[in-house]
Amino acid sequence: MEQLKVFKIGGRVVENEKNLNFFLENYAKIPGKKLLVHGGGNWVTEMSERLGLETKKIDGRRITDAETLKVVLMMLAGLANKTIVSKLQAFGCNALGLTGADGNVIESEKRPLKNGIDYGFVGDVKKVNGLALQKLIDGGFSPVLTALTHDKKGTLLNTNADTIASVTAVSLAPTFDVELIFCFELPGVLKDINDQKSVIPLINSDIYKELRASHVINEGMIPKIDNAFDALQEGVKKVRICHSEHIVKFAEGKTNFGTLISN
Amino acid sequence: MEQLKVFKIGGRVVENEKNLNFFLENYAKIPGKKLLVHGGGNWVTEMSERLGLETKKIDGRRITDAETLKVVLMMLAGLANKTIVSKLQAFGCNALGLTGADGNVIESEKRPLKNGIDYGFVGDVKKVNGLALQKLIDGGFSPVLTALTHDKKGTLLNTNADTIASVTAVSLAPTFDVELIFCFELPGVLKDINDQKSVIPLINSDIYKELRASHVINEGMIPKIDNAFDALQEGVKKVRICHSEHIVKFAEGKTNFGTLISN
Repeated sequence: MEQLKVFKIGGRVVENEKNLNFFLENYAKIPGKKLLVHGGGNWVTEMSERLGLETKKIDGRRITDAETLKVVLMMLAGLANKTIVSKLQAFGCNALGLTGADGNVIESEKRPLKNGIDYGFVGDVKKVNGLALQKLIDGGFSPVLTALTHDKKGTLLNTNADTIASVTAVSLAPTFDVELIFCFELPGVLKDINDQKSVIPLINSDIYKELRASHVINEGMIPKIDNAFDALQEGVKKVRICHSEHIVKFAEGKTNFGTLISN
Repeated sequence: MEQLKVFKIGGRVVENEKNLNFFLENYAKIPGKKLLVHGGGNWVTEMSERLGLETKKIDGRRITDAETLKVVLMMLAGLANKTIVSKLQAFGCNALGLTGADGNVIESEKRPLKNGIDYGFVGDVKKVNGLALQKLIDGGFSPVLTALTHDKKGTLLNTNADTIASVTAVSLAPTFDVELIFCFELPGVLKDINDQKSVIPLINSDIYKELRASHVINEGMIPKIDNAFDALQEGVKKVRICHSEHIVKFAEGKTNFGTLISN
């Protein structure tokens, strides 16, 4: 099977022009088929503040009300996505930007009330249209997905970008040999959060059990790693967690960096 | 050759929820291949004001500075385009939103200084990638283009939506039997701007010469009609200027409405 790489970058890459240019220039150099998923939540927060919208949070989670959803559309589907697409085009990558509504690529449903809390316009993924994505990829386009899905009833829904990367990778696993890569601001999963040299090179299910039992892994990493194992179980071949600057390693065809997650 | 309809709607349709829903519900019902181009300039003006940006105009034409360009990306590529795409998906049309940067569909160049005036981030169309659009259309997607193009050097440029509709229609004329339709807030080209019943049903080049000589046609219509004749000369089969509510006529397969422009 032909290889396909699914990359996810977060707001810290998107929102810093120098980091973004570095990432995209090298992303464009990676040979073969690829797909990019991006966030950009701080831009949403900044614009919401500029527009005088109140940021509502419950237990640290943002509530996406109707006005905030508009800002998400503006900042993610508009500013962030099109900035990335036009830069990639300049670097020679035939990028095509998408939300989950475009070509009906990702259908979701509004998250039901949880303990009486309404998270607003937030979507839990229901169905990924792998065939539509495959058509675009086989047509020579390199999809750039942002963190928005739709309910197919006319409503867009804010959806976690890590989840989008994961379900998208899974949807393409029957057709391609998929590697899923989460790029963030650390060189990989660390044994010691204060020591950037303490990268764990490989996590398989046995190692993961041990690491969790000994409470070595930072709380914030747990959902990312759980996500990775889910993707592996559903057919994704490899998952890697690494620094966004490691993008140069992919362009150079290297594999000894970051944390590889494997069954 | 298979038929393709290219529709253009302006801000007055996009920015009014009732008008927009009416248009899109009926657009979705039109059988066959179709493509939609939309504007939304008032939303840009409103948001610019809300953000305290000064709207600079020279001779009545807006100057798109770097900050205004960001607002154009937010409002057109973000809010307007994704609202339209998600509504069309709800109505059963497999819409896919695009700027000229996505899939490199429309390349433009920054307008050169004119009499020393810099119009800012405004693009004059250089090249339309009909093949990319055709791939999307043949792949079962219904493109929804907004009024942004790119210079392939990483910069997006604000571009007139009528022009985008026109050049897009031309780029697809070698492959499809193209009808180009400009939908606006009047029932067609009027003999008397104050009489909505004075629609001119047909304008060919002879009639156009007479109408211009007798100063019957409203100034604002002239560039639209010139545009239409250019498109006809470059292979587009039919051009129609009509009211956005005439969209029901297309869904019903009727042809006796608006103004037909023909060589």
